Amino acid sequence: MEEIRIIEVKQSVFEDNNKDAEELRKTLKAEKTFLLNLMSSPGSGKTTTLKALAKELSGKLRWAVMEADIDSAVDAEAMLNAGVPSIQIHTGGMCHLDADMTRQGLSQIDTKEFDLVVLENVGNLVCPAEFDTGASKNMTILSVPEGDDKPLKYPLMYETCDLLVINKTDVMEYFDFDMEKVEKYAKMRNPDIEIIKISAKTGEGISKLADWIIKNVNDWNN
Amino acid sequence: MEEIRIIEVKQSVFEDNNKDAEELRKTLKAEKTFLLNLMSSPGSGKTTTLKALAKELSGKLRWAVMEADIDSAVDAEAMLNAGVPSIQIHTGGMCHLDADMTRQGLSQIDTKEFDLVVLENVGNLVCPAEFDTGASKNMTILSVPEGDDKPLKYPLMYETCDLLVINKTDVMEYFDFDMEKVEKYAKMRNPDIEIIKISAKTGEGISKLADWIIKNVNDWNN
Repeated sequence: MEEIRIIEVKQSVFEDNNKDAEELRKTLKAEKTFLLNLMSSPGSGKTTTLKALAKELSGKLRWAVMEADIDSAVDAEAMLNAGVPSIQIHTGGMCHLDADMTRQGLSQIDTKEFDLVVLENVGNLVCPAEFDTGASKNMTILSVPEGDDKPLKYPLMYETCDLLVINKTDVMEYFDFDMEKVEKYAKMRNPDIEIIKISAKTGEGISKLADWIIKNVNDWNN
Repeated sequence: MEEIRIIEVKQSVFEDNNKDAEELRKTLKAEKTFLLNLMSSPGSGKTTTLKALAKELSGKLRWAVMEADIDSAVDAEAMLNAGVPSIQIHTGGMCHLDADMTRQGLSQIDTKEFDLVVLENVGNLVCPAEFDTGASKNMTILSVPEGDDKPLKYPLMYETCDLLVINKTDVMEYFDFDMEKVEKYAKMRNPDIEIIKISAKTGEGISKLADWIIKNVNDWNN
Protein backbone atom coordinates (compact mmCIF):
# COMPACT_ATOMS: atom_id res chain seq x y z
CA MET A 1 0.00 0.00 0.00
CA GLU A 2 2.85 2.40 -0.76
CA GLU A 3 1.14 4.49 -3.38
CA ILE A 4 -2.20 6.21 -3.13
CA ARG A 5 -5.04 4.14 -4.44
CA ILE A 6 -8.10 6.09 -5.50
CA ILE A 7 -11.34 4.10 -5.61
CA GLU A 8 -14.34 5.58 -7.42
CA VAL A 9 -17.45 4.29 -5.64
CA LYS A 10 -20.97 4.44 -7.06
CA GLN A 11 -24.25 5.17 -5.35
CA SER A 12 -25.98 2.06 -4.12
CA VAL A 13 -28.64 0.35 -6.18
CA PHE A 14 -29.92 -1.40 -3.07
CA GLU A 15 -33.23 -0.09 -1.86
CA ASP A 16 -32.82 -1.10 1.73
CA ASN A 17 -29.67 0.54 3.06
CA ASN A 18 -30.44 -0.49 6.65
CA LYS A 19 -30.56 -4.16 5.71
CA ASP A 20 -27.39 -3.79 3.69
CA ALA A 21 -25.65 -2.09 6.61
CA GLU A 22 -26.67 -4.88 9.00
CA GLU A 23 -25.18 -7.46 6.63
CA LEU A 24 -21.91 -5.56 6.34
CA ARG A 25 -21.75 -5.22 10.14
CA LYS A 26 -22.29 -8.97 10.50
CA THR A 27 -19.52 -9.75 8.00
CA LEU A 28 -17.07 -7.42 9.75
CA LYS A 29 -18.00 -8.87 13.15
CA ALA A 30 -17.18 -12.36 11.85
CA GLU A 31 -13.85 -11.06 10.53
CA LYS A 32 -13.10 -9.38 13.86
CA THR A 33 -12.77 -5.99 12.17
CA PHE A 34 -14.14 -2.91 13.90
CA LEU A 35 -15.37 -0.19 11.53
CA LEU A 36 -15.38 3.34 12.97
CA ASN A 37 -17.39 5.91 10.99
CA LEU A 38 -15.85 9.34 11.55
CA MET A 39 -18.01 12.33 10.63
CA SER A 40 -17.76 16.12 11.02
CA SER A 41 -17.93 19.49 9.28
CA PRO A 42 -15.22 20.23 6.72
CA GLY A 43 -12.07 21.36 8.49
CA SER A 44 -12.85 20.25 12.04
CA GLY A 45 -9.69 18.13 12.07
CA LYS A 46 -10.65 14.55 11.17
CA THR A 47 -7.38 13.76 9.38
CA THR A 48 -5.24 15.65 11.89
CA THR A 49 -6.85 13.65 14.69
CA LEU A 50 -6.16 10.37 12.88
CA LYS A 51 -2.56 11.44 12.32
CA ALA A 52 -2.23 12.20 16.03
CA LEU A 53 -3.66 8.74 16.81
CA ALA A 54 -1.07 7.02 14.60
CA LYS A 55 1.61 7.09 17.31
CA GLU A 56 -0.77 6.19 20.15
CA LEU A 57 -2.21 3.18 18.34
CA SER A 58 1.09 1.96 16.92
CA GLY A 59 1.84 -1.58 18.14
CA LYS A 60 -1.54 -1.83 19.89
CA LEU A 61 -3.85 -2.27 16.92
CA ARG A 62 -3.52 -3.17 13.27
CA TRP A 63 -5.47 -0.41 11.56
CA ALA A 64 -6.18 1.19 8.19
CA VAL A 65 -8.01 4.28 6.96
CA MET A 66 -10.49 4.85 4.13
CA GLU A 67 -10.62 8.54 3.22
CA ALA A 68 -13.84 9.62 1.48
CA ASP A 69 -13.91 12.86 -0.47
CA ILE A 70 -15.54 14.32 -3.53
CA ASP A 71 -12.17 15.16 -5.03
CA SER A 72 -8.42 15.20 -4.21
CA ALA A 73 -6.28 12.63 -2.37
CA VAL A 74 -4.72 14.97 0.20
CA ASP A 75 -6.09 13.06 3.20
CA ALA A 76 -4.93 9.61 2.07
CA GLU A 77 -1.52 11.11 1.32
CA ALA A 78 -1.37 12.58 4.83
CA MET A 79 -2.25 9.23 6.44
CA LEU A 80 0.26 7.30 4.34
CA ASN A 81 2.91 9.82 5.39
CA ALA A 82 1.93 9.08 9.00
CA GLY A 83 2.60 5.40 8.32
CA VAL A 84 -1.01 4.20 8.26
CA PRO A 85 -2.27 2.07 5.32
CA SER A 86 -4.84 4.25 3.55
CA ILE A 87 -6.97 4.40 0.46
CA GLN A 88 -8.83 7.36 -1.00
CA ILE A 89 -12.47 6.92 -1.98
CA HIS A 90 -14.08 9.37 -4.41
CA THR A 91 -17.85 9.58 -4.06
CA GLY A 92 -18.66 10.92 -7.53
CA GLY A 93 -20.01 14.17 -6.07
CA MET A 94 -22.11 12.41 -3.41
CA CYS A 95 -22.38 14.09 -0.01
CA HIS A 96 -22.19 10.88 2.04
CA LEU A 97 -21.41 7.17 1.96
CA ASP A 98 -24.03 4.46 2.28
CA ALA A 99 -23.39 0.83 3.27
CA ASP A 100 -22.80 -0.39 -0.27
CA MET A 101 -20.35 2.42 -1.08
CA THR A 102 -18.56 1.56 2.15
CA ARG A 103 -18.43 -2.08 1.10
CA GLN A 104 -17.00 -1.09 -2.30
CA GLY A 105 -14.20 0.75 -0.51
CA LEU A 106 -13.59 -2.06 2.00
CA SER A 107 -13.28 -4.59 -0.84
CA GLN A 108 -9.98 -2.88 -1.70
CA ILE A 109 -8.59 -3.56 1.78
CA ASP A 110 -7.80 -6.97 3.22
CA THR A 111 -10.10 -6.31 6.17
CA LYS A 112 -9.25 -9.60 7.91
CA GLU A 113 -5.74 -8.25 8.39
CA PHE A 114 -6.96 -5.26 10.42
CA ASP A 115 -8.53 -4.93 13.89
CA LEU A 116 -9.80 -1.48 13.02
CA VAL A 117 -10.73 0.38 9.84
CA VAL A 118 -11.60 4.06 10.16
CA LEU A 119 -13.93 5.46 7.52
CA GLU A 120 -13.34 9.19 7.28
CA ASN A 121 -16.67 10.27 5.83
CA VAL A 122 -17.27 13.32 3.59
CA GLY A 123 -17.04 16.57 5.59
CA ASN A 124 -20.72 17.32 6.16
CA LEU A 125 -22.89 17.52 9.30
CA VAL A 126 -26.14 16.60 7.54
CA CYS A 127 -26.16 13.79 4.98
CA PRO A 128 -23.63 11.30 6.43
CA ALA A 129 -25.76 11.03 9.59
CA GLU A 130 -28.72 9.85 7.51
CA PHE A 131 -27.05 6.68 6.20
CA ASP A 132 -26.00 3.67 8.24
CA THR A 133 -22.62 2.70 6.74
CA GLY A 134 -22.45 -0.63 8.55
CA ALA A 135 -20.04 0.84 11.10
CA SER A 136 -19.56 -0.68 14.54
CA LYS A 137 -19.63 2.80 16.10
CA ASN A 138 -20.13 6.40 14.94
CA MET A 139 -17.98 9.29 16.05
CA THR A 140 -18.20 13.01 15.31
CA ILE A 141 -15.70 15.82 15.82
CA LEU A 142 -16.75 19.36 16.68
CA SER A 143 -13.94 21.91 16.65
CA VAL A 144 -13.95 24.94 18.94
CA PRO A 145 -13.91 27.55 16.10
CA GLU A 146 -17.20 26.13 14.75
CA GLY A 147 -19.11 27.30 17.81
CA ASP A 148 -21.10 25.68 20.60
CA ASP A 149 -24.50 25.82 18.89
CA LYS A 150 -23.96 22.97 16.41
CA PRO A 151 -25.98 20.31 18.30
CA LEU A 152 -28.95 22.71 18.16
CA LYS A 153 -28.72 23.05 14.37
CA TYR A 154 -27.72 19.52 13.31
CA PRO A 155 -29.70 17.21 15.63
CA LEU A 156 -29.35 13.91 13.73
CA MET A 157 -25.54 13.96 13.76
CA TYR A 158 -25.52 14.03 17.56
CA GLU A 159 -28.38 11.54 17.90
CA THR A 160 -26.48 9.07 15.69
CA CYS A 161 -23.03 9.28 17.29
CA ASP A 162 -21.64 7.23 20.16
CA LEU A 163 -18.75 9.61 20.70
CA LEU A 164 -18.36 13.38 20.40
CA VAL A 165 -14.78 14.59 20.23
CA ILE A 166 -14.28 18.29 20.85
CA ASN A 167 -11.14 19.33 18.99
CA LYS A 168 -8.90 22.43 18.85
CA THR A 169 -9.18 23.06 22.61
CA ASP A 170 -5.79 24.81 22.32
CA VAL A 171 -7.51 27.85 20.76
CA MET A 172 -10.38 28.06 23.30
CA GLU A 173 -9.31 31.51 24.48
CA TYR A 174 -9.59 33.05 20.99
CA PHE A 175 -13.19 31.96 20.42
CA ASP A 176 -16.52 32.41 22.18
CA PHE A 177 -17.07 28.74 22.89
CA ASP A 178 -18.95 27.63 25.98
CA MET A 179 -17.92 24.05 26.85
CA GLU A 180 -20.78 23.61 29.33
CA LYS A 181 -23.32 24.69 26.74
CA VAL A 182 -22.06 22.32 24.06
CA GLU A 183 -22.09 19.39 26.48
CA LYS A 184 -25.63 20.29 27.54
CA TYR A 185 -26.85 20.61 23.93
CA ALA A 186 -25.17 17.33 22.85
CA LYS A 187 -26.68 15.42 25.81
CA MET A 188 -30.05 16.98 24.97
CA ARG A 189 -29.83 15.33 21.54
CA ASN A 190 -28.37 12.09 22.89
CA PRO A 191 -28.15 11.40 26.64
CA ASP A 192 -25.80 8.43 26.01
CA ILE A 193 -23.21 10.30 23.94
CA GLU A 194 -19.67 10.13 25.34
CA ILE A 195 -17.52 13.26 25.14
CA ILE A 196 -13.71 13.52 24.90
CA LYS A 197 -11.85 16.83 24.60
CA ILE A 198 -8.66 16.96 22.55
CA SER A 199 -6.22 19.12 20.69
CA ALA A 200 -4.97 17.08 17.75
CA LYS A 201 -2.34 19.79 17.26
CA THR A 202 -0.79 19.70 20.75
CA GLY A 203 -1.67 16.06 21.49
CA GLU A 204 -3.81 16.90 24.52
CA GLY A 205 -6.45 14.22 25.14
CA ILE A 206 -5.23 11.94 22.32
CA SER A 207 -4.29 9.10 24.68
CA LYS A 208 -7.81 9.23 26.15
CA LEU A 209 -9.27 8.98 22.66
CA ALA A 210 -6.92 6.11 21.83
CA ASP A 211 -8.08 4.32 25.01
CA TRP A 212 -11.73 4.75 23.97
CA ILE A 213 -10.95 3.27 20.55
CA ILE A 214 -8.92 0.35 21.91
CA LYS A 215 -11.63 -0.51 24.47
CA ASN A 216 -14.34 -0.46 21.80
CA VAL A 217 -12.27 -2.49 19.33
CA ASN A 218 -11.58 -5.09 22.04
CA ASP A 219 -15.26 -5.27 23.06
CA TRP A 220 -16.18 -5.82 19.41
CA ASN A 221 -13.51 -8.33 18.54
CA ASN A 222 -13.79 -10.56 21.61
CA MET B 1 -41.20 41.43 12.24
CA GLU B 2 -40.51 41.72 15.97
CA GLU B 3 -40.87 38.06 16.89
CA ILE B 4 -39.17 35.12 15.25
CA ARG B 5 -41.20 33.57 12.51
CA ILE B 6 -40.32 29.96 11.72
CA ILE B 7 -41.36 28.76 8.27
CA GLU B 8 -41.40 25.02 7.56
CA VAL B 9 -40.57 24.56 3.87
CA LYS B 10 -41.12 21.38 1.89
CA GLN B 11 -38.99 19.79 -0.79
CA SER B 12 -39.94 20.88 -4.26
CA VAL B 13 -42.30 18.83 -6.39
CA PHE B 14 -41.02 20.58 -9.50
CA GLU B 15 -38.87 18.41 -11.67
CA ASP B 16 -36.92 21.18 -13.31
CA ASN B 17 -35.21 23.17 -10.59
CA ASN B 18 -33.16 25.17 -13.09
CA LYS B 19 -36.28 26.42 -14.86
CA ASP B 20 -37.89 27.21 -11.53
CA ALA B 21 -34.79 29.12 -10.42
CA GLU B 22 -34.75 31.17 -13.63
CA GLU B 23 -38.38 32.16 -13.07
CA LEU B 24 -37.72 33.20 -9.49
CA ARG B 25 -34.71 35.25 -10.63
CA LYS B 26 -36.87 36.99 -13.25
CA THR B 27 -39.55 37.82 -10.65
CA LEU B 28 -36.99 39.26 -8.23
CA LYS B 29 -35.33 41.26 -11.02
CA ALA B 30 -38.72 42.83 -11.85
CA GLU B 31 -39.21 43.66 -8.17
CA LYS B 32 -35.69 45.15 -7.95
CA THR B 33 -34.74 42.72 -5.20
CA PHE B 34 -31.24 41.20 -5.16
CA LEU B 35 -31.06 37.71 -3.67
CA LEU B 36 -27.65 36.74 -2.27
CA ASN B 37 -27.20 33.02 -1.57
CA LEU B 38 -24.67 32.62 1.25
CA MET B 39 -23.14 29.17 1.65
CA SER B 40 -20.37 27.64 3.79
CA SER B 41 -19.39 24.88 6.21
CA PRO B 42 -21.09 24.89 9.60
CA GLY B 43 -19.40 27.40 11.89
CA SER B 44 -17.43 29.40 9.33
CA GLY B 45 -19.17 32.59 10.47
CA LYS B 46 -22.11 33.24 8.14
CA THR B 47 -24.32 34.82 10.79
CA THR B 48 -21.47 36.69 12.47
CA THR B 49 -20.53 38.17 9.08
CA LEU B 50 -24.12 39.28 8.46
CA LYS B 51 -24.26 40.84 11.94
CA ALA B 52 -21.03 42.72 11.18
CA LEU B 53 -22.57 43.94 7.91
CA ALA B 54 -25.65 45.32 9.71
CA LYS B 55 -23.92 48.56 10.72
CA GLU B 56 -22.13 49.00 7.37
CA LEU B 57 -25.31 48.56 5.32
CA SER B 58 -27.54 50.58 7.63
CA GLY B 59 -29.08 53.52 5.77
CA LYS B 60 -27.56 52.39 2.47
CA LEU B 61 -29.77 49.41 1.66
CA ARG B 62 -33.10 48.05 2.79
CA TRP B 63 -32.34 44.41 3.54
CA ALA B 64 -33.68 41.27 5.17
CA VAL B 65 -32.32 37.82 5.99
CA MET B 66 -33.75 34.31 5.56
CA GLU B 67 -31.98 31.88 7.86
CA ALA B 68 -32.16 28.24 6.76
CA ASP B 69 -31.47 25.48 9.26
CA ILE B 70 -32.58 21.97 10.03
CA ASP B 71 -33.51 22.95 13.56
CA SER B 72 -33.32 25.89 16.03
CA ALA B 73 -33.90 29.61 15.49
CA VAL B 74 -30.63 30.90 16.95
CA ASP B 75 -29.51 32.62 13.73
CA ALA B 76 -32.77 34.51 13.10
CA GLU B 77 -32.72 35.61 16.75
CA ALA B 78 -29.17 36.90 16.32
CA MET B 79 -30.08 38.90 13.20
CA LEU B 80 -33.21 40.37 14.79
CA ASN B 81 -31.08 41.45 17.75
CA ALA B 82 -28.78 43.16 15.23
CA GLY B 83 -31.81 45.09 13.94
CA VAL B 84 -32.22 43.24 10.63
CA PRO B 85 -35.65 41.85 9.64
CA SER B 86 -35.23 38.08 9.62
CA ILE B 87 -37.17 34.86 9.32
CA GLN B 88 -36.08 31.34 10.15
CA ILE B 89 -36.67 28.58 7.60
CA HIS B 90 -36.67 24.95 8.69
CA THR B 91 -35.85 22.51 5.91
CA GLY B 92 -37.42 19.38 7.39
CA GLY B 93 -34.03 17.68 7.62
CA MET B 94 -32.99 18.64 4.07
CA CYS B 95 -29.32 19.49 3.51
CA HIS B 96 -29.96 22.37 1.08
CA LEU B 97 -32.57 24.72 -0.38
CA ASP B 98 -33.83 24.50 -3.95
CA ALA B 99 -35.58 27.30 -5.86
CA ASP B 100 -39.08 26.34 -4.75
CA MET B 101 -38.10 26.11 -1.08
CA THR B 102 -36.48 29.54 -1.46
CA ARG B 103 -39.70 30.86 -2.98
CA GLN B 104 -41.71 29.41 -0.06
CA GLY B 105 -39.47 31.35 2.32
CA LEU B 106 -39.56 34.56 0.27
CA SER B 107 -43.36 34.45 0.19
CA GLN B 108 -43.24 35.32 3.90
CA ILE B 109 -41.29 38.50 3.23
CA ASP B 110 -42.60 41.55 1.38
CA THR B 111 -39.69 41.32 -1.09
CA LYS B 112 -40.68 44.52 -2.95
CA GLU B 113 -39.83 46.44 0.21
CA PHE B 114 -36.22 45.23 0.17
CA ASP B 115 -33.26 45.95 -2.14
CA LEU B 116 -31.46 42.88 -0.84
CA VAL B 117 -32.46 39.57 0.72
CA VAL B 118 -29.69 37.32 1.99
CA LEU B 119 -30.45 33.62 2.05
CA GLU B 120 -28.22 32.00 4.66
CA ASN B 121 -28.21 28.44 3.35
CA VAL B 122 -27.77 25.26 5.45
CA GLY B 123 -24.16 24.89 6.67
CA ASN B 124 -22.80 22.38 4.14
CA LEU B 125 -20.12 22.59 1.43
CA VAL B 126 -21.65 19.91 -0.80
CA CYS B 127 -25.41 19.88 -1.38
CA PRO B 128 -26.29 23.62 -1.45
CA ALA B 129 -23.88 24.09 -4.39
CA GLU B 130 -25.87 21.57 -6.44
CA PHE B 131 -29.13 23.55 -6.45
CA ASP B 132 -29.73 26.90 -8.12
CA THR B 133 -31.87 28.80 -5.59
CA GLY B 134 -32.77 31.60 -8.01
CA ALA B 135 -30.18 33.87 -6.38
CA SER B 136 -28.68 36.86 -8.20
CA LYS B 137 -25.21 35.92 -6.91
CA ASN B 138 -23.64 33.13 -4.86
CA MET B 139 -21.14 33.71 -2.08
CA THR B 140 -19.19 31.30 0.10
CA ILE B 141 -17.24 31.83 3.31
CA LEU B 142 -14.14 29.82 4.17
CA SER B 143 -12.78 30.39 7.67
CA VAL B 144 -9.08 30.14 8.47
CA PRO B 145 -9.46 27.27 11.03
CA GLU B 146 -11.04 25.06 8.32
CA GLY B 147 -7.78 24.89 6.39
CA ASP B 148 -6.57 25.94 2.94
CA ASP B 149 -7.37 22.65 1.17
CA LYS B 150 -11.15 23.09 0.94
CA PRO B 151 -11.27 24.13 -2.78
CA LEU B 152 -9.45 20.86 -3.55
CA LYS B 153 -12.05 18.75 -1.75
CA TYR B 154 -15.28 20.59 -2.58
CA PRO B 155 -14.87 21.72 -6.20
CA LEU B 156 -18.49 22.56 -7.05
CA MET B 157 -18.88 25.07 -4.21
CA TYR B 158 -16.02 27.16 -5.61
CA GLU B 159 -17.10 26.71 -9.23
CA THR B 160 -20.58 27.99 -8.35
CA CYS B 161 -19.65 31.06 -6.30
CA ASP B 162 -19.05 34.61 -7.50
CA LEU B 163 -17.40 35.64 -4.25
CA LEU B 164 -15.17 33.83 -1.77
CA VAL B 165 -14.91 35.50 1.62
CA ILE B 166 -12.04 34.31 3.81
CA ASN B 167 -13.09 34.85 7.42
CA LYS B 168 -11.39 34.71 10.84
CA THR B 169 -8.18 36.28 9.55
CA ASP B 170 -7.60 37.49 13.14
CA VAL B 171 -6.55 33.96 14.15
CA MET B 172 -4.21 33.36 11.18
CA GLU B 173 -1.17 32.99 13.43
CA TYR B 174 -2.70 30.10 15.39
CA PHE B 175 -3.43 27.93 12.36
CA ASP B 176 -1.45 26.47 9.47
CA PHE B 177 -3.32 28.35 6.76
CA ASP B 178 -1.55 29.38 3.58
CA MET B 179 -3.38 32.33 2.02
CA GLU B 180 -1.53 32.04 -1.28
CA LYS B 181 -2.43 28.36 -1.59
CA VAL B 182 -6.12 28.90 -0.94
CA GLU B 183 -6.27 31.71 -3.52
CA LYS B 184 -4.50 29.49 -6.04
CA TYR B 185 -6.81 26.52 -5.38
CA ALA B 186 -9.95 28.67 -5.54
CA LYS B 187 -8.89 30.29 -8.85
CA MET B 188 -8.06 26.80 -10.15
CA ARG B 189 -11.73 25.87 -9.58
CA ASN B 190 -13.06 29.20 -10.83
CA PRO B 191 -10.76 31.79 -12.47
CA ASP B 192 -13.46 34.49 -12.14
CA ILE B 193 -14.05 34.12 -8.40
CA GLU B 194 -13.51 37.33 -6.42
CA ILE B 195 -11.84 37.06 -3.01
CA ILE B 196 -12.28 39.32 0.03
CA LYS B 197 -10.52 38.74 3.37
CA ILE B 198 -12.32 39.66 6.58
CA SER B 199 -12.53 39.15 10.28
CA ALA B 200 -16.20 39.38 11.19
CA LYS B 201 -15.09 39.50 14.83
CA THR B 202 -12.73 42.50 14.61
CA GLY B 203 -14.50 44.17 11.66
CA GLU B 204 -11.46 44.02 9.38
CA GLY B 205 -12.48 43.94 5.71
CA ILE B 206 -16.20 44.32 6.42
CA SER B 207 -16.45 47.70 4.65
CA LYS B 208 -14.88 46.11 1.56
CA LEU B 209 -17.46 43.32 1.67
CA ALA B 210 -20.23 45.88 2.14
CA ASP B 211 -18.95 47.77 -0.92
CA TRP B 212 -19.03 44.56 -3.00
CA ILE B 213 -22.62 43.92 -1.94
CA ILE B 214 -23.78 47.51 -2.57
CA LYS B 215 -22.15 47.55 -6.03
CA ASN B 216 -23.77 44.24 -6.99
CA VAL B 217 -27.18 45.26 -5.63
CA ASN B 218 -27.00 48.53 -7.59
CA ASP B 219 -25.93 46.75 -10.79
CA TRP B 220 -28.89 44.39 -10.39
CA ASN B 221 -31.51 46.95 -9.46
CA ASN B 222 -30.67 49.61 -12.05
